[in-house]
Amino acid sequence: MPWNLQGTHAQEGDLVQLVGLRHKHFIVRLKAGETFHSHRGTLKHDDLIGLPWGTQVFSHNGAPFFVIQPALGDLLRGIKRNTQILYPKDIGYILVTMGIGPGMHVLEAGTGSGALTSAFVYAVGPQGRVTSYEARPEMQEMARRNLQHLGMEERVTLKLGNVADGFAERNVDALFYDLPNPYDYTAQAREALKPGGFFGSILPTVNQVSQLLVALRRERFAFIDVLELMLRFLKPEPSRMRPADRMVAHTGYLVFARPVLIDPAHANRALLRETGYLSEIEPDEEPAPAEVEAGGDFDGVVAVENEQFPEVDFDEVGQDG
Amino acid sequence: MPWNLQGTHAQEGDLVQLVGLRHKHFIVRLKAGETFHSHRGTLKHDDLIGLPWGTQVFSHNGAPFFVIQPALGDLLRGIKRNTQILYPKDIGYILVTMGIGPGMHVLEAGTGSGALTSAFVYAVGPQGRVTSYEARPEMQEMARRNLQHLGMEERVTLKLGNVADGFAERNVDALFYDLPNPYDYTAQAREALKPGGFFGSILPTVNQVSQLLVALRRERFAFIDVLELMLRFLKPEPSRMRPADRMVAHTGYLVFARPVLIDPAHANRALLRETGYLSEIEPDEEPAPAEVEAGGDFDGVVAVENEQFPEVDFDEVGQDG
Amino acid sequence: MPWNLQGTHAQEGDLVQLVGLRHKHFIVRLKAGETFHSHRGTLKHDDLIGLPWGTQVFSHNGAPFFVIQPALGDLLRGIKRNTQILYPKDIGYILVTMGIGPGMHVLEAGTGSGALTSAFVYAVGPQGRVTSYEARPEMQEMARRNLQHLGMEERVTLKLGNVADGFAERNVDALFYDLPNPYDYTAQAREALKPGGFFGSILPTVNQVSQLLVALRRERFAFIDVLELMLRFLKPEPSRMRPADRMVAHTGYLVFARPVLIDPAHANRALLRETGYLSEIEPDEEPAPAEVEAGGDFDGVVAVENEQFPEVDFDEVGQDG
Amino acid sequence: MPWNLQGTHAQEGDLVQLVGLRHKHFIVRLKAGETFHSHRGTLKHDDLIGLPWGTQVFSHNGAPFFVIQPALGDLLRGIKRNTQILYPKDIGYILVTMGIGPGMHVLEAGTGSGALTSAFVYAVGPQGRVTSYEARPEMQEMARRNLQHLGMEERVTLKLGNVADGFAERNVDALFYDLPNPYDYTAQAREALKPGGFFGSILPTVNQVSQLLVALRRERFAFIDVLELMLRFLKPEPSRMRPADRMVAHTGYLVFARPVLIDPAHANRALLRETGYLSEIEPDEEPAPAEVEAGGDFDGVVAVENEQFPEVDFDEVGQDG
Repeated sequence: MPWNLQGTHAQEGDLVQLVGLRHKHFIVRLKAGETFHSHRGTLKHDDLIGLPWGTQVFSHNGAPFFVIQPALGDLLRGIKRNTQILYPKDIGYILVTMGIGPGMHVLEAGTGSGALTSAFVYAVGPQGRVTSYEARPEMQEMARRNLQHLGMEERVTLKLGNVADGFAERNVDALFYDLPNPYDYTAQAREALKPGGFFGSILPTVNQVSQLLVALRRERFAFIDVLELMLRFLKPEPSRMRPADRMVAHTGYLVFARPVLIDPAHANRALLRETGYLSEIEPDEEPAPAEVEAGGDFDGVVAVENEQFPEVDFDEVGQDG
Repeated sequence: MPWNLQGTHAQEGDLVQLVGLRHKHFIVRLKAGETFHSHRGTLKHDDLIGLPWGTQVFSHNGAPFFVIQPALGDLLRGIKRNTQILYPKDIGYILVTMGIGPGMHVLEAGTGSGALTSAFVYAVGPQGRVTSYEARPEMQEMARRNLQHLGMEERVTLKLGNVADGFAERNVDALFYDLPNPYDYTAQAREALKPGGFFGSILPTVNQVSQLLVALRRERFAFIDVLELMLRFLKPEPSRMRPADRMVAHTGYLVFARPVLIDPAHANRALLRETGYLSEIEPDEEPAPAEVEAGGDFDGVVAVENEQFPEVDFDEVGQDG
Repeated sequence: MPWNLQGTHAQEGDLVQLVGLRHKHFIVRLKAGETFHSHRGTLKHDDLIGLPWGTQVFSHNGAPFFVIQPALGDLLRGIKRNTQILYPKDIGYILVTMGIGPGMHVLEAGTGSGALTSAFVYAVGPQGRVTSYEARPEMQEMARRNLQHLGMEERVTLKLGNVADGFAERNVDALFYDLPNPYDYTAQAREALKPGGFFGSILPTVNQVSQLLVALRRERFAFIDVLELMLRFLKPEPSRMRPADRMVAHTGYLVFARPVLIDPAHANRALLRETGYLSEIEPDEEPAPAEVEAGGDFDGVVAVENEQFPEVDFDEVGQDG
Repeated sequence: MPWNLQGTHAQEGDLVQLVGLRHKHFIVRLKAGETFHSHRGTLKHDDLIGLPWGTQVFSHNGAPFFVIQPALGDLLRGIKRNTQILYPKDIGYILVTMGIGPGMHVLEAGTGSGALTSAFVYAVGPQGRVTSYEARPEMQEMARRNLQHLGMEERVTLKLGNVADGFAERNVDALFYDLPNPYDYTAQAREALKPGGFFGSILPTVNQVSQLLVALRRERFAFIDVLELMLRFLKPEPSRMRPADRMVAHTGYLVFARPVLIDPAHANRALLRETGYLSEIEPDEEPAPAEVEAGGDFDGVVAVENEQFPEVDFDEVGQDG
């Protein structure tokens, strides 16, 4: 049974988050007759089933716990992992920017511990599809167990395979690379994505981002964005409002792009530059007009000179973004 | 027809994003026989219908455009508004942290321009429900038009009314206040939310956050988090990697909390403090133990002394968050 | 002998920084015949005197150390303290913004551990003067020892006293409050500072900043700035460039202001607002014009209407800031 | 006459900052008989000389100005430039971290517009020395005029020359490279700096930082730090405390390092790694022990195995940094 956040009382089959002292959180699935064990005592599942969410309970030896519903962010933090952590701040931005919602088909590589996979499964809902590739069998196995723990294993297709060999899928709506070397597989990404689809990746170092940008341009992706999100907590004390003392300084750089279709005989260089399809800064790497007309490949994009357009701002017709 | 991100070719009824020079974006719904007008020329919808997504086209006078599918983040930027902007970075975090996904019932006040409303509608999907209150008729009207533009008006219930009068809904899974004075309505929030449900709000000033924290504690919310997200773009130039020159410095502080159920005769003060139900720093505002035993109300939470528990760290049984 | 950063070889009387494994730093003053003791072995000062700076040495049992000159930032980190830490990032900005350099007279309260005091002494040089007030004798004693350790005790005047009683000094060039309640002493600050002098303070919470802003306006300070500095280290690995994993999220808010002289019969409200002397946002707290002409006090600033000035931007004559 | 911040009244020869409406700032040197001209009217210097600092004045046609003393930060913002801007936040950190204060000898390249030069001149005071190299005559001329404007031209030695040819100076206390390619001149830096001296640079892109790190390691620099500072202003409204809407996202990365002296026959690899002299992460780039004993150069640093040292933390003797 898939985990859900509906209902007012804890029921058999629900995932519950038990929050104890010192910020110890446990996520367990309720099953009649079972017992939760921790160093802070035991709790019988039968005593939890039927409780309203948000109730405080005590273990057999008096340790206090809250019984609450885990949000996606909580589940992600609870995922067993041996890889780089994907934080809620990054996942939330990925979902919104790549438009990942009910009914979409999302492709992912690599599966890793399955944390991001589970976020995709959750967001696309029962009508959506998630396919995830992983090259390492033992890692796939860990992801499978994590997804089973969340009741999600039936809503995702886990595939064992190397991205270098390409994907069986075509025209997927969105593709995310959680890999150290996404720049080696941009051709495979283009092949699997539908035209104009959503490409995303997260990378810890600037060097990797730099390599990915080169590969994305080579593979005719446009609308390239690179960004980082910094999250800072404030101490929740009304009369002493101030940020926390320490924070996570870096998780990764997010890179987004979209494959576009350019007819070299009919292309506009200014727009290509503006959308990141061509490099804005390095003009000497761009083809000379003469070469353009000779060839029909990427290097041959034709710069239709639209200098007749006044570059003044104007009121948009329709809805302005 | 609701907007969606599936399909490989632009079809009648689809929302399309036309991206032109100087980062001018237009979002229009395709309809046979219609024409898109802008200062950069016109485009016939019939010429766009059937094109693969990601295609470059030219207006009647040669201005270039890309025809792409708008993600949720793009739609939000395109929403007509006369209020504070909710940014994708904040919306993404709200969705993940409040667990907002397919099938949930989300309550919102106020509706404002409908931007956040549309994000909720998108995330809960066809099986979910979104109810949104707004006190100003003209604002509700703008939101209605925005939601119609997105094809979402049938999947949200817009209600005209003042939050001070309370909500008709009960046991909603999540409630979000996009209001300048959420601290005046925490009782109404508690009444509408299911136990342990998800409460969220966004506020521009620290003064407002401070007032909200006081109100949340008074209304027995716990698990209070206050945070801000900073987004910094990098210039996507592989050989000159560096952040952009300028950035948005502030959008708002996000506040999250959850209503909990405490039996005053059986409560643990340490856990209540840790989860933000009681103030950690201002002990003199907390009830003295003697008063506790006398009363049965909030002020009378009993501090079960669990000092017998060693405060050492321990390996969690089950899954550790 | 005051510590200095000149000279190419370690000499008797110099402060040296011994940098050992695991980022253990020791700051000692070289004295012939003495021995440096640590858990990582001993070093004879005589063996260090005469060495070129930057030399690697080994303790009697083989532990490696570098012998380097400590910069001001290193000394600050090495100051014995039992109070809030002032970080180099904040001190550097204070020095530049308050123009603290050779020859100035700087007033400070409270002395605290003497860290900021030593930065001021260092920056004003032998021709400058630093006077520092502290109300707690034991804290003053700790500061005195710290300043002696740095060879700076003769270049600063430490005074024991409560700021509430005012300062004996007049017309000081700059005044810094490193106190929890600077808002209680803005009148004393104004009295001690020369007209147009530099006022600065650092405060950990927004609530304190808010109170200080009210007090500064009441005492006719203008040019009010509030800001925070965030410092993020990058890992110095050429092929894996990325920020460090964690960072300090908050040290304090810096507040700067300058006392100005306003003749109420001749004042310009627009300029006063722009410079922070009057509140820009709360017009209802400002005096009505009728009251202005009646009174001669602060509330009676006259708004000379300069609406004849075109508000267009213009090229500045002379040097434009 | 050098500019200074002492004195209570504006006097002939002083630099004054005239602050007008719309944040227009003018910095002028007072001279009897002269007149300040701006689009907002004129002010006679004779009317300003003798005024207390912080006074509000009006131009001949009624435009209001404040007469205040410019701090170093203000002067820097007022410097005529045609190059990358060095911000007070970065300059303050440079001064504190490189220990730049009264009496030091600082070497700089290139001079650029002279902004950083003037900060160094100000900080080292009348007993210090600043030498600055610049390859472009017209740029040096601009810097000279800027320094004259500040009354600082006699306290700095401006040299015309290419850093590739090396510096005439030896054993300088600190050296700063404000150049696009500092990595080409690390040998020259090492030659000019005293052992253990302070090296610093600021660079806009990560690519440049990466190249500089390689060069610094090659030239036997240690104690390498790379960092960035972010400055965020808060709106100074007591009842609506919040950050400003926008901020500068990036000025540059600061890089600091110090040349050390290593006797290859007596070196400790663990310490060298910890201090950034050797790369921590890329062990395959480091010399194998066998090669070490054969050679005597950098590649031949001997790793004295000090594994007998317990890696436990210990209380430092003396003063711990």
